[in-house]
Amino acid sequence: MTDPQGTGTISTPEAGEHDPAPDQLLQLGLAFWGSKTLLSAVELGVFSELAGGPLTTAELTTRLGLHPRGARDFFDALVALGMLTRDDDGYHNTPETAAFLDRSKPSYIGGMFDMANDRLYPFWGSLTEGLRTGSPQNEVKTGGTFFEVEYQDPAQLRLFLQAMTGVSMGAARRIAVEFPWHRYRTVIDIGCAQGCLPVQLAGRHGHLSGGGFDLPLVAPVFDEYVAANGLTDRLRFHPGDFFTDPLPSADVLVMGHILHDWDLSEKKALIAKAYDALPDDGALIIYDAVIDDQRRTNAFGLLMSLNMLIETPGGFDYTGGDCRGWLDEAGFRSSYVKPLAGPDSMVVGIK
Amino acid sequence: MTDPQGTGTISTPEAGEHDPAPDQLLQLGLAFWGSKTLLSAVELGVFSELAGGPLTTAELTTRLGLHPRGARDFFDALVALGMLTRDDDGYHNTPETAAFLDRSKPSYIGGMFDMANDRLYPFWGSLTEGLRTGSPQNEVKTGGTFFEVEYQDPAQLRLFLQAMTGVSMGAARRIAVEFPWHRYRTVIDIGCAQGCLPVQLAGRHGHLSGGGFDLPLVAPVFDEYVAANGLTDRLRFHPGDFFTDPLPSADVLVMGHILHDWDLSEKKALIAKAYDALPDDGALIIYDAVIDDQRRTNAFGLLMSLNMLIETPGGFDYTGGDCRGWLDEAGFRSSYVKPLAGPDSMVVGIK
Repeated sequence: MTDPQGTGTISTPEAGEHDPAPDQLLQLGLAFWGSKTLLSAVELGVFSELAGGPLTTAELTTRLGLHPRGARDFFDALVALGMLTRDDDGYHNTPETAAFLDRSKPSYIGGMFDMANDRLYPFWGSLTEGLRTGSPQNEVKTGGTFFEVEYQDPAQLRLFLQAMTGVSMGAARRIAVEFPWHRYRTVIDIGCAQGCLPVQLAGRHGHLSGGGFDLPLVAPVFDEYVAANGLTDRLRFHPGDFFTDPLPSADVLVMGHILHDWDLSEKKALIAKAYDALPDDGALIIYDAVIDDQRRTNAFGLLMSLNMLIETPGGFDYTGGDCRGWLDEAGFRSSYVKPLAGPDSMVVGIK
Repeated sequence: MTDPQGTGTISTPEAGEHDPAPDQLLQLGLAFWGSKTLLSAVELGVFSELAGGPLTTAELTTRLGLHPRGARDFFDALVALGMLTRDDDGYHNTPETAAFLDRSKPSYIGGMFDMANDRLYPFWGSLTEGLRTGSPQNEVKTGGTFFEVEYQDPAQLRLFLQAMTGVSMGAARRIAVEFPWHRYRTVIDIGCAQGCLPVQLAGRHGHLSGGGFDLPLVAPVFDEYVAANGLTDRLRFHPGDFFTDPLPSADVLVMGHILHDWDLSEKKALIAKAYDALPDDGALIIYDAVIDDQRRTNAFGLLMSLNMLIETPGGFDYTGGDCRGWLDEAGFRSSYVKPLAGPDSMVVGIK
């Protein structure tokens, strides 16, 4: 131990250096502080305000309508969390917050954060009840199923569909470069929401066409997002219900953050329907926060499965091994798992 | 990019490898999932049940009264978060969760997690309102001040005092080895709560005596904790209010996680009172989640300051430079800052 202050401070490093320490426990137990700080920053429009250039503490406080008491701590906490930078000109967005959390950009994924802020944060407050009962802890507690509730109110629907773009963007960008798209001509995303994935694919590969399949209500939100990205000529919306209608056919079908919403028999039914809709040599790409086969390392995937407990009657996340077993059972001749961005992996089945 | 499955998958690594990616944003925005999972685990007594040895998924599910649907994901998420281990015998505590989250041990700090689970998690749900109004977002919204409310109900008081042991344990263990205790004979912790710090000091240094100062209501909780740690002969409780009563004298006075509760004039008043109570050459040790002078790196300290916004009318956290300035103003002849465990540092003033 050094004594940088020259005050003669002496420490006794033999004592307690390797005792268990509670710091990691406290950091995790209070990690919701940093999380909620980012969610409030998106709600308040911090990153959209900074899109025009840096702002000082006083300017940003005024623009956001904040009380001065907590404002500077709030902004500096966002700096320490890596969500803003700060120099003599004031606060700036990072490349990431500029790209994904500025409301005026088509790459905005703040819908996910709005949904987490408005819904998931309070619903996770009753995680203990969910674990005790095995029942959802969302709007369903007051009647209705998740998708009925979400899809009833157009504003809520838009929020949900934008949120899905938020959770899919990282994976979509990786799938655009990690799959041999030169071998295929058409692709349809099953349960496409706004169309995040088809837009990433068509944007990067000029030879691809196709579109997305989702409930009829989703059409205007899909069309608007595809038009905003200038891809209306190659991407088309296919309306339908993937449990009651046949799936459209394409060289490649994709199910992203879909399979985990459903129970085991529903999962198998969806995979069987995809198999039926594919041509020979066609591919099914399933992506989710696929759990590692040992169920030891992908904390996000395991927590996403608890989120399915909060949100759905029977949904759960699964390992790559689980999913390859279902693909095999459905008749796919080969399959493999490939990591994508962050906690997501894709499981590819070849018919 | 490799092709471990031998399926001829080709990727184009030149495309998009260095684009901004949203993964970090999503991880932070959803970090409350892992946090709440740990808080629910403490609430359910996971770590206390495992104190007797490993338990299988089925055994642990039954003991905790959980529904099977989410139980395995819950336990495996705790493994992936580093809070449990798992082998052929089932789930085990880690050294840290065994030491600090088993209710039967005197080193239990779960009170902090109970308080975070019951109070802070829902109160932080209105962080945005706190930022807009500058007003507390806890029980105070329905009348009373924080300490009035906390100290009114004996069960709530005990929870709060145990919580303070949780947040102080890491720092207390470091202060016991990072300060030249051989030069001093007596120490009193001002605002001692259960007595976490005096117990750590007296336990490690047989020549030290002293005790703790706090509101009279705290006496039985202090006495019980000190007795459980076998230190009643050397540690005594001093009842009083640190704003209206004089402070007791000792060679060393300590204020841990106290100063940040109060506004600037109250902070300065407390430091002046400590100065008056110390002998010449006596030391005041202040510890808190002291913010780095540049306000760029100690995210926890900055978030703790937002927690003071949620919890108090005027409290805030501060940098080492801020605190040394106040010590200088009060007349202390020298001061220094020294990092402790995790986000905590101590600021030492010598009279």
